[in-house]
Amino acid sequence: MGKKISVLGSGSWGTALSMVLAENGHHVSLWGRNEKQMSEMQATRENKRYLPGVLLDDTIALTSSLQESITDADYILVVVPTKAMRDVLSDINKLMTATSVFIHASKGIEPETHYRISQIIEEEISEEKREGVVVLSGPSHAEEVCKKQPTTVTCSSIHMNIAEDVQDLFMNQAFRVYTNTDLIGVEIGGSLKNIIALGSGMTSGLGFGDNAKAALMTRGLAEIARLGVKLGANPLTFAGLSGLGDLIVTCTSQHSRNWRAGNMLGKGLSVEETEKELGMVVEGIRTTKAAYQLAKAVGVDMPITTELYEVLFNDKSVDEAVTRLMGRVKKREVEHLPLSSAFSHQDPLNHFEP
Amino acid sequence: MGKKISVLGSGSWGTALSMVLAENGHHVSLWGRNEKQMSEMQATRENKRYLPGVLLDDTIALTSSLQESITDADYILVVVPTKAMRDVLSDINKLMTATSVFIHASKGIEPETHYRISQIIEEEISEEKREGVVVLSGPSHAEEVCKKQPTTVTCSSIHMNIAEDVQDLFMNQAFRVYTNTDLIGVEIGGSLKNIIALGSGMTSGLGFGDNAKAALMTRGLAEIARLGVKLGANPLTFAGLSGLGDLIVTCTSQHSRNWRAGNMLGKGLSVEETEKELGMVVEGIRTTKAAYQLAKAVGVDMPITTELYEVLFNDKSVDEAVTRLMGRVKKREVEHLPLSSAFSHQDPLNHFEP
Repeated sequence: MGKKISVLGSGSWGTALSMVLAENGHHVSLWGRNEKQMSEMQATRENKRYLPGVLLDDTIALTSSLQESITDADYILVVVPTKAMRDVLSDINKLMTATSVFIHASKGIEPETHYRISQIIEEEISEEKREGVVVLSGPSHAEEVCKKQPTTVTCSSIHMNIAEDVQDLFMNQAFRVYTNTDLIGVEIGGSLKNIIALGSGMTSGLGFGDNAKAALMTRGLAEIARLGVKLGANPLTFAGLSGLGDLIVTCTSQHSRNWRAGNMLGKGLSVEETEKELGMVVEGIRTTKAAYQLAKAVGVDMPITTELYEVLFNDKSVDEAVTRLMGRVKKREVEHLPLSSAFSHQDPLNHFEP
Repeated sequence: MGKKISVLGSGSWGTALSMVLAENGHHVSLWGRNEKQMSEMQATRENKRYLPGVLLDDTIALTSSLQESITDADYILVVVPTKAMRDVLSDINKLMTATSVFIHASKGIEPETHYRISQIIEEEISEEKREGVVVLSGPSHAEEVCKKQPTTVTCSSIHMNIAEDVQDLFMNQAFRVYTNTDLIGVEIGGSLKNIIALGSGMTSGLGFGDNAKAALMTRGLAEIARLGVKLGANPLTFAGLSGLGDLIVTCTSQHSRNWRAGNMLGKGLSVEETEKELGMVVEGIRTTKAAYQLAKAVGVDMPITTELYEVLFNDKSVDEAVTRLMGRVKKREVEHLPLSSAFSHQDPLNHFEP
């Protein structure tokens, strides 16, 4: 039985997920704010700006009217940038007259509040209008999903039954969905991996090789997990698709905006020059600041994030940052990995401090 | 105080590690079986075959006499291929008159016995002649180590004090060493990652993209951890430098022999054609067989390894293998990750079955 699904956000990922849902027999209404873009898409059945070359499924309805898109929706899938999230949600809340399951597939931490997206949804959408909040995350270039190349993602909700419903919506032979009840871990991993992508580009910009990149990714994931666990996440989640999997895709693809920004910084450009050169805001830079502040606030040691913060916001040199990271005191490996004392403690929230 | 260290194996990695040790002020005797190669290296102070362009440190003694190299050695570092391991160790055991700490930096599982290298050392070297067995492993291209690019590795022994002594031997500003007491996990991770590298090359050969590669690496590491834990490893180790770190380097570098082999297989070549084309034995193919047998023997589910085994040894098609992997029943993510029940069980050996 096809469900009615409103997809909010007509970027590449919102469009690709609409295609998966339509292919699975669901009734998709894809909304984009830009009226002109939407009527062009309507005419050409192609998202020329964000996903050129992909012919949209006939059954996908396109609209720039939020009201039209969300009416009678069983599920509302939000795929807008973190920056626009609150405004869109607040508008939906005013327009909604019934109840929907909320799914989001966006990444980021709100700078001022340090909120995850699901927390913003919970704040903006009245409780009686949402049946549950689910995040979909994992290693997934939109272009490859549209080509039906094998892709795996995680879908997470604190309620397993709702996560399983969403798994059913999306899963097919090319798009494999795993469920997970650790919403915090999935959202933290997906957002903070952009910091490590930035650092990964930086090591390349400095002329370092694969050894340095692998070290940064491994130790970077360990410190993300350390923060996540402190916030209530299950450390296992970081070894999964939304953690390790997404980190691999982001750090090893030179198409990644964050990787490219890091590369320029490593070559000596300033933050301003880098953003000017790329012509867009670099999410990883904002996330570094949010993660640095969050780690400080909750008392978690994040040496890589801290050095990146110093480079980005305190004019420290990249060379010195590397020297400091390599010159730290001798360490045991497992003390600094997630789950270091999992076998000897009961409370997962309090035993992953460095 | 410089130590006397005998390095056995004059390939690229043995030579690079000799450079690190010499730079740290130790007295290194580098042994290679091939008399001609060793006298050429003596004359040119360069390992032209395996590490061209690197000028050997003046203090490194070069020899093709095992007796000469191991005499009075505080440490014996073995870096020979798994195939040659038993013979070299058996020769050393006959020649040794005193006691040394044994370090190895080789990767592999002995096909017939399914032994890890440390088990072969314990079998071949009389107990009174060895003070301890240590493995050194991690994401480390030899060429980058010689250029003093930042590199991190794990050094592991069941005795932390011995691991710390070895950490002291190697550690410097460009070569950062973490200690770990999980010898089994470090050896299993380092060896089995070649299976995933083979699979990773295969997905590229099939024309798949980054999503598929990230999925394979993430789920591949999860199944390696599952086997490792069953054998007595600490699941944490697989998220560290010798697990995840080494996996990243091997799967994302197109210089990797295993990746290249997988790529050819993905393009439709047979195992024989692939090995002929590469002109050498592909370690990951042998390891796939060993891991498949081992997993069967101990009752661990390794779906990726199993599909690779079917392709390599039972003439199954690569396409069908992918279809089977993507078409498996719906799964929860965390059940299939290492440490899934770490918080609720006491015995780490018995609760990671699928």
